[in-house]
Amino acid sequence: MAGATVLAPQGLSILPLRGIPEVNPNDDLAALLAEAARSSCGGLSAGDVVVVTHKVVSKAEGTLVDLAAVTPTARAERLQQRRGGDVRLLEVVLRESARIIREAPTVLICETRHGLVCANAGVDRSNVAGAQVVALLPSDPDASARRLRDALLSSVDGGPLGVIVSDTFGRPFRLGGVNVAIGAAGLPALSRHAGMTDQHGYELHDASDVASADEIAAAAELVMGKVAAVPAALVRGLQWVGEGSGAAELQRHPDRDVFRR
Amino acid sequence: MAGATVLAPQGLSILPLRGIPEVNPNDDLAALLAEAARSSCGGLSAGDVVVVTHKVVSKAEGTLVDLAAVTPTARAERLQQRRGGDVRLLEVVLRESARIIREAPTVLICETRHGLVCANAGVDRSNVAGAQVVALLPSDPDASARRLRDALLSSVDGGPLGVIVSDTFGRPFRLGGVNVAIGAAGLPALSRHAGMTDQHGYELHDASDVASADEIAAAAELVMGKVAAVPAALVRGLQWVGEGSGAAELQRHPDRDVFRR
Repeated sequence: MAGATVLAPQGLSILPLRGIPEVNPNDDLAALLAEAARSSCGGLSAGDVVVVTHKVVSKAEGTLVDLAAVTPTARAERLQQRRGGDVRLLEVVLRESARIIREAPTVLICETRHGLVCANAGVDRSNVAGAQVVALLPSDPDASARRLRDALLSSVDGGPLGVIVSDTFGRPFRLGGVNVAIGAAGLPALSRHAGMTDQHGYELHDASDVASADEIAAAAELVMGKVAAVPAALVRGLQWVGEGSGAAELQRHPDRDVFRR
Repeated sequence: MAGATVLAPQGLSILPLRGIPEVNPNDDLAALLAEAARSSCGGLSAGDVVVVTHKVVSKAEGTLVDLAAVTPTARAERLQQRRGGDVRLLEVVLRESARIIREAPTVLICETRHGLVCANAGVDRSNVAGAQVVALLPSDPDASARRLRDALLSSVDGGPLGVIVSDTFGRPFRLGGVNVAIGAAGLPALSRHAGMTDQHGYELHDASDVASADEIAAAAELVMGKVAAVPAALVRGLQWVGEGSGAAELQRHPDRDVFRR
């Protein structure tokens, strides 16, 4: 019954990882997370999942762009003339995008180079120090999660240990953003139930697969918040088998997405 | 800084509510939840949020349909000829739908009578006893949440107490379902940050609103699971002000939804 499922049958606790200072390029984020775990909740334990917002990952990795140094292309100029806004920001959004899926009134809904679909290709001005500097998504969020996880593994005697890199995405149909997993390492991102049976003996199918990593990211947001500036949380109580292949597993292929045609 | 935000600054614990028996029409679900809370975790406390899957709400409220008693319309017959499947199930899906948004290969993506957008208008066969019987969504999930919350309020000396009725929805762009709030009472469903400032002094805007009730439902799914048949969970540690107006607050108006045109 376990298979590739992620579940907390005995319950779950989610703790804010406090005391992480302002992160700068080349900072050792894994060390900062380990230290915050020590001071916030006695350190990491086997079975923990660390959720960290992509913003501090991008800062540590230096995936920041100074708008003052951006020269807009003609395409960005045309967009700006039609939609308004900061043409240099539009230029950065276009560079991060494989394509624009929809032009919404206040944001562009983009498919990023990574295959994620989100507002303004994840380029974000708020929460970044310096009005001219914007943060991009990490260049490879699954690789970022793997590096953090590998660095943290020694503190839990070999694990298991999961790391999720999160961002808050808007959604069609529903208001309000929800935190999702854009990177994951050490645990399956998707709980696959196909072939299992429920308590009435009905066989479950693909449609009953659950995006566990997204649910973990969502849960973590409840202790991190938008205003409180806690950039990471510890999720304790989950059980899983295997390590999965990252949050890319959660990307629906464009050809199989009736909302991307 | 608090306003309409829902947050767990000291951390969160999520506990499965075990021991809820198979629910039948006219069962007192509030009493079953209160008893499960007593036996699972010493009873409800002020500030708790109870998340309950819509399936047991629908069963208790008797919003079940026996397919043997369904006479398909011509529209359902035409759909069946084109797509295959059980014509009686298609008929029930059409009855529950205000309109069909997309025809995906294996499901219809419907806007329900309530304004929710989900696969097959939320009509669900698995987990319901009896192969011929399907469960509909509750007729008014916010009213269901309010009734449960009012009935449970006496056990927490007047509260605060939140109740969320959840369902697992698929999504555009991403694989795997996530649990969302289709009904809510006693707490704001949407955390509004517009006008607040982040730690760098940037003013947050509408796009930074967070669907807190959806994140709570997602967190709860991690202890309930698809296979384990735990239909409810207790979320402890959240702080909020006000009672909100229900999960309908999370519905994006179709005219403001670039993916519903």
